[in-house]
Amino acid sequence: MVLSFHDPESGERLYLQVYHYYRELIMSRRLPPGSRMPSLRSCARELHLSRTTIENAYLQLAADGYIISKAQSGYYVTDIAVQKPVLPKNRKPELPPVRYNFASSGVDRESFRFDLWQRYLKSALRQNERLLSYGEPQGESDFRQVLSEYVRQRRNVTCSPDDIVIGAGVQSLLHILCPLIKDKKTVSFPAASFIQGSTVFSDYGFTVRYRSKDSGVIYVSPAHMTKWGEIMPVSRRMELLRYAGEHQSLIIEDDFENEFVYLQKPTPSLFSLAGGHGVVYIGSFSRLLLPSIRISFMILPPELTEAYQKKAEFYNQTASKAEQIALCQFIRDGHLASQTRRLKRLYSVKMKQLLTAIREVFDKSCQIQIGSAGTSLALTVACGCEGQILKKKARAKGLRLEILEEKPGTVTLLLSCSAMPSEDFLPACRLLKSLLD
Amino acid sequence: MVLSFHDPESGERLYLQVYHYYRELIMSRRLPPGSRMPSLRSCARELHLSRTTIENAYLQLAADGYIISKAQSGYYVTDIAVQKPVLPKNRKPELPPVRYNFASSGVDRESFRFDLWQRYLKSALRQNERLLSYGEPQGESDFRQVLSEYVRQRRNVTCSPDDIVIGAGVQSLLHILCPLIKDKKTVSFPAASFIQGSTVFSDYGFTVRYRSKDSGVIYVSPAHMTKWGEIMPVSRRMELLRYAGEHQSLIIEDDFENEFVYLQKPTPSLFSLAGGHGVVYIGSFSRLLLPSIRISFMILPPELTEAYQKKAEFYNQTASKAEQIALCQFIRDGHLASQTRRLKRLYSVKMKQLLTAIREVFDKSCQIQIGSAGTSLALTVACGCEGQILKKKARAKGLRLEILEEKPGTVTLLLSCSAMPSEDFLPACRLLKSLLD
Repeated sequence: MVLSFHDPESGERLYLQVYHYYRELIMSRRLPPGSRMPSLRSCARELHLSRTTIENAYLQLAADGYIISKAQSGYYVTDIAVQKPVLPKNRKPELPPVRYNFASSGVDRESFRFDLWQRYLKSALRQNERLLSYGEPQGESDFRQVLSEYVRQRRNVTCSPDDIVIGAGVQSLLHILCPLIKDKKTVSFPAASFIQGSTVFSDYGFTVRYRSKDSGVIYVSPAHMTKWGEIMPVSRRMELLRYAGEHQSLIIEDDFENEFVYLQKPTPSLFSLAGGHGVVYIGSFSRLLLPSIRISFMILPPELTEAYQKKAEFYNQTASKAEQIALCQFIRDGHLASQTRRLKRLYSVKMKQLLTAIREVFDKSCQIQIGSAGTSLALTVACGCEGQILKKKARAKGLRLEILEEKPGTVTLLLSCSAMPSEDFLPACRLLKSLLD
Repeated sequence: MVLSFHDPESGERLYLQVYHYYRELIMSRRLPPGSRMPSLRSCARELHLSRTTIENAYLQLAADGYIISKAQSGYYVTDIAVQKPVLPKNRKPELPPVRYNFASSGVDRESFRFDLWQRYLKSALRQNERLLSYGEPQGESDFRQVLSEYVRQRRNVTCSPDDIVIGAGVQSLLHILCPLIKDKKTVSFPAASFIQGSTVFSDYGFTVRYRSKDSGVIYVSPAHMTKWGEIMPVSRRMELLRYAGEHQSLIIEDDFENEFVYLQKPTPSLFSLAGGHGVVYIGSFSRLLLPSIRISFMILPPELTEAYQKKAEFYNQTASKAEQIALCQFIRDGHLASQTRRLKRLYSVKMKQLLTAIREVFDKSCQIQIGSAGTSLALTVACGCEGQILKKKARAKGLRLEILEEKPGTVTLLLSCSAMPSEDFLPACRLLKSLLD
């Protein structure tokens, strides 16, 4: 080996000379992928250089991806010289595109005024100075101010902006709330389908139960008691509050889809019925705007605000500042209120159209559960195969389904009307029927 | 009391008649704020109506904010008739605007091309169809693909897009990671200043220690070992990996500010040195783009991907989908790379300018600690008062400071050059000096 590693004229540090030498060998594949590099000791001896110099060169080669170290074995040439872009592992077989999606919790594509939202977000992005800094940990203060007025008008929830915490989705809020109420130890959910909520609680060591009032925390969703939109009657709300008050349980009221209660005036929120004590109120915008906008908020009762304020600075805000600024002005200008009215009207009509389509296709051979809120209904039909097999068969035909329950000979599906255009209801129901035999 | 509550002609349901009657009394302030409503029993007797009818009316009044229930006492009229918009509690005394901010971790206002980012976000917002649905729990797949190439090129980190998890900030990622590694029980941080990270771990029941290698989890930030940008030398990195390997400790490598290592080639990442085993790699964009853009990512080693995949569906994505789409294309088009180069050049110059300003103002009466990375330095000066008092005095003059440490007679400040324009360095240092006596 003839190498000019000692030429002080080259101006390059020694280890870099070694580095470049090997890089060239590797990229030209004279040292092919997988070959073992000489040991530090033998290389140092051969090149008449110190071991440290060689080690520095090898480390830089490793840092740049040319070689890789294997424990107790040495360095090996990577496949960098023949490398192709990394592809995702476990690629699944190709499926046809989804034509009809009964399982989607997305929103109706006609319902959202993208142009309008774009305008608000653009205007938020012009607030350069504000976007140059991190957001307030609790959420932007003008946005919290607007939210406190919004919940007072719509849900009779009286609170100060200081009681409101913003986060990127309900889970982000629970990640702040759970450590504050850890000593409650047990939590009750209305059903096993609240998996996103119960996951966070069990991650924090809570024992999760279902419909068990004897729990330290009672998580309820009064306008969404079941996936098909049953709502909690006022008498039951009062009873729950009394019980929780007597047992010192904390109620978490996830007011999901309270905007889509069609058949009656929206029932009062637990938070307002309780006068703001013993209840954490949670609200979201994903069903009113776009599911992809990750903004939720919680309102803490006085018992928890002090404990929260002590830790507030330790949690970074998760929601996008630009989106908070945009949504703040969007609400101020009355667009959220009109969007809510539009959606409520739209979904109320679509639910009826879906019902009509089901009755036409299935006649009397089905059972339908429908609540007074929401965008879904439960359909029970006779089915010759298992639910999971039905789901796969349907998907292969471009129909996406959600199975709620199965019993021998029947299956209960959750059909959502929100994302599917109403002209698809009839063909989608016909396709479903053809798969059941 | 003469009331026509029994008039069937009115067409209004009885409870609503009672509701409207009281609402009128309250809004006209004939029932003034704070007055107690008649008990259900006495009201029912007086109006010759059932108790249930009265209760329904009261509940609707409460739901709409006219009355409020107090436990074991009855209903009281709220101040809705005289209500003004809710104002934040505990308003702090007004302070002058901040003229010089040495404590800011914001970015240089000249450095970010708002117009460019606006264009990318606008183009993301045009992807209507994509924004109508919830994001992938793990993060958008095209974005993860781009990230996997980005870390391979820049940090020699070889991973599949399936190993990458996106989240709205580092804490959101730790909220997913901590439950997966709960059995590790102890975690070591480099210093108490990593409060956002250690908070999440202690929320999950971990014992938090500092610089204690005998821990189940070792959290390190190799390019940001101290707030003034000391970096971990390669020899120490190798030693840490060996130690962690022998003791089965998991390393979390928060590669914060690795882009701003000025004085040498960036040192190799622990993840790449370890060949991807036993290390979780965390990266962020808040220092490269805008702090208000909440996007971070973690790369899981093979030991953890399976456990994660089992739970992936239970965690909703926290980062904004529109911002993920925008950033994906922004990186593809090479703008992140050029933004990084621009910032690195800029901060390297600004650090030198800040140093010059300090030397000019403080001469030999100060001590300066400066690392080979980052955007801050530590300045120790003689100070006649306590740190917190200095901080308040400075703030009253429009100068924001961060105290790192204090000893009798001296105080150590962390001065950041990133958000302050360089022409302010000299006047800001002079103002600081005038406050020290």
